Amino acid sequence: MSGNFLALAQPGVQQLSPYVPGKPVDELARELNLDPASIVKLASNENPLGASPKALAAIREALAELTRYPDGNGFALKTLLADRCRVELNQVTLGNGSNDILELVARAYLAPGLNAVFSEHAFAVYPIATQAVGAQAKVIPAKNWGHDLPAMLAAIDADTRVVFIANPNNPTGTWFDAEALDEFLQDVPAHVLVVLDEAYIEYAEGSDLPDGLDYLAAYPNLLVSRTFSKAYGLASLRVGYGLSSAIVADVLNRVRQPFNVNSLALAAACAALQDVEYLAESRRLNQSGMQQLEAGFRELGLSWIPSRGNFICVDLGRVAAPVFQGLLREGVIVRPVANYGMPNHLRITIGLPAENSRFLEALTKVMARG
Amino acid sequence: MSGNFLALAQPGVQQLSPYVPGKPVDELARELNLDPASIVKLASNENPLGASPKALAAIREALAELTRYPDGNGFALKTLLADRCRVELNQVTLGNGSNDILELVARAYLAPGLNAVFSEHAFAVYPIATQAVGAQAKVIPAKNWGHDLPAMLAAIDADTRVVFIANPNNPTGTWFDAEALDEFLQDVPAHVLVVLDEAYIEYAEGSDLPDGLDYLAAYPNLLVSRTFSKAYGLASLRVGYGLSSAIVADVLNRVRQPFNVNSLALAAACAALQDVEYLAESRRLNQSGMQQLEAGFRELGLSWIPSRGNFICVDLGRVAAPVFQGLLREGVIVRPVANYGMPNHLRITIGLPAENSRFLEALTKVMARG
Repeated sequence: MSGNFLALAQPGVQQLSPYVPGKPVDELARELNLDPASIVKLASNENPLGASPKALAAIREALAELTRYPDGNGFALKTLLADRCRVELNQVTLGNGSNDILELVARAYLAPGLNAVFSEHAFAVYPIATQAVGAQAKVIPAKNWGHDLPAMLAAIDADTRVVFIANPNNPTGTWFDAEALDEFLQDVPAHVLVVLDEAYIEYAEGSDLPDGLDYLAAYPNLLVSRTFSKAYGLASLRVGYGLSSAIVADVLNRVRQPFNVNSLALAAACAALQDVEYLAESRRLNQSGMQQLEAGFRELGLSWIPSRGNFICVDLGRVAAPVFQGLLREGVIVRPVANYGMPNHLRITIGLPAENSRFLEALTKVMARG
Repeated sequence: MSGNFLALAQPGVQQLSPYVPGKPVDELARELNLDPASIVKLASNENPLGASPKALAAIREALAELTRYPDGNGFALKTLLADRCRVELNQVTLGNGSNDILELVARAYLAPGLNAVFSEHAFAVYPIATQAVGAQAKVIPAKNWGHDLPAMLAAIDADTRVVFIANPNNPTGTWFDAEALDEFLQDVPAHVLVVLDEAYIEYAEGSDLPDGLDYLAAYPNLLVSRTFSKAYGLASLRVGYGLSSAIVADVLNRVRQPFNVNSLALAAACAALQDVEYLAESRRLNQSGMQQLEAGFRELGLSWIPSRGNFICVDLGRVAAPVFQGLLREGVIVRPVANYGMPNHLRITIGLPAENSRFLEALTKVMARG
């Protein structure tokens, strides 16, 4: 046998295309010889508010133990989360971002010959995690850019083990209401794990979106995944969590790496979870920024997909790639979504008021060039 | 089909026993109602020197970007590592600790029907990573507590895809020389990936241990894994790396999570790599501490396994578990290694001089009780 280490990789791995992240500020600065401070990045759904002062203080305190391994059980954070989310400690799984939770599910419950169901225009990690373990992806056409839950239900077959649904969905910002979720969960077969990805749920509080936590007691085949990367402002540190039945959590905790979440992430997440004012301010900023961008699009005669996340997809009415490039030259990074089957849209993260203005001015300028 | 989510998990996952970490200081403090500051932990091969001041400064600077995602390509750290390790940028894979690298290898190259070869008394993550993907573990009896490389070679069969070897080995501290590694690598079939785990290699510099990097150019089937958790003092942050052929690195980089290494880890690792004085002091401290422990064991009439790591296994000449418990009651945490097939040994991490003394005094007291 030859030493061709591409051919020797597992079949699913050989076909993997890596995740394409938002363009880093430093990279654009190098390419265009710009001052990094002059660049506006609205590309990765990061929190524009800056870090929670309480999280920063917790990190500084945790630096005293930098040479020590993290608490592999994440006892303090899991205790806070269990209390906040009205579950037992043994129903919590911590992840290196919620990306880790999604992958743990795939590694535990998918394999060649099995399949996962998810929607068109859904988060890129669902197909990647499915592909990496050699399982089949059943991608269900979207309806008005959002999940077609009845069609997803109909697509479940004997080999389906996981359904990924997101509320609100990234990159579209679309959502479904409690009635739709009720009907869906009632009809999903008991052997199919429903992963309800609520990475952006904190931005939708008080709206007509259901709270996934309300369904955990009734549905042992439900896992709710959440993150500290968005509304809690800790994307750099990588910490997310899954809430599920104790059995599913036990399985995921066996599969995860023993020290998958670092110490500073654990400390910062504990503090951020208790920083009520930071979360409230993040929401306020997001709501006003969303209105600012919608008003700007209206003025430009552009339509958009209504969003309940911290981002919005604008329809340029033409291929978006040249506009994306034009915006880069203006020092504004947004997110092309052609790889999500949306070649005419751009996804813009809600920024600070001044960042939103910079983006709208740049967009006006670039669009005017025709 | 029922909704039994243990039975629905992949067969390898169902059999998984999680990694057992060293007992955390806080846990012992809670259990025995002790002041955490009074507890000496020599259980997890952590660096007793405290953090590198340069790493701490780099973290404080990186806190300004806490809400931003990490650079998923780890450009700055990979550039430094490529330069330091005399490889190209595309030969480097960054991991969430070197644990991540070991798992990436298993997920890329192992599956049911295939096997991995490793030694008795070797790092617990080798069997866990192998089991998690449903592959078979071929565990080769050790020779004088160390790897029996000719026997490991003889155990390779048509279904072997990975061999894990460690130099020095954890938990035994044993090592092999350049001649033994030469012979081994020359005879391993080209389709078998050799993972040379050098997590502790920085402690062995200047000794008769070979440098794995010297073999990369000649052996496209070699991967050297290293970590910042030990001599570089960054265990809390989770950062390790693999060096290999560009093809193997490409495969592992597809399998890894897009943001597997957090921003503070990337910044701290860059700084630690350049803190020459910290590394030198870590080595000096380790050498003198090793002599201190050996002298103490000699005085107690105990034998030990000679070690090139930052830890040492002492042979108590009787079942070690009660002594481990007795040491806990004295506020000293060391590592039992019965789960490594070494029921009469305890593994002690080299600490500060005062910590080593505390341990030796406690051991003397506990052993005297009979």
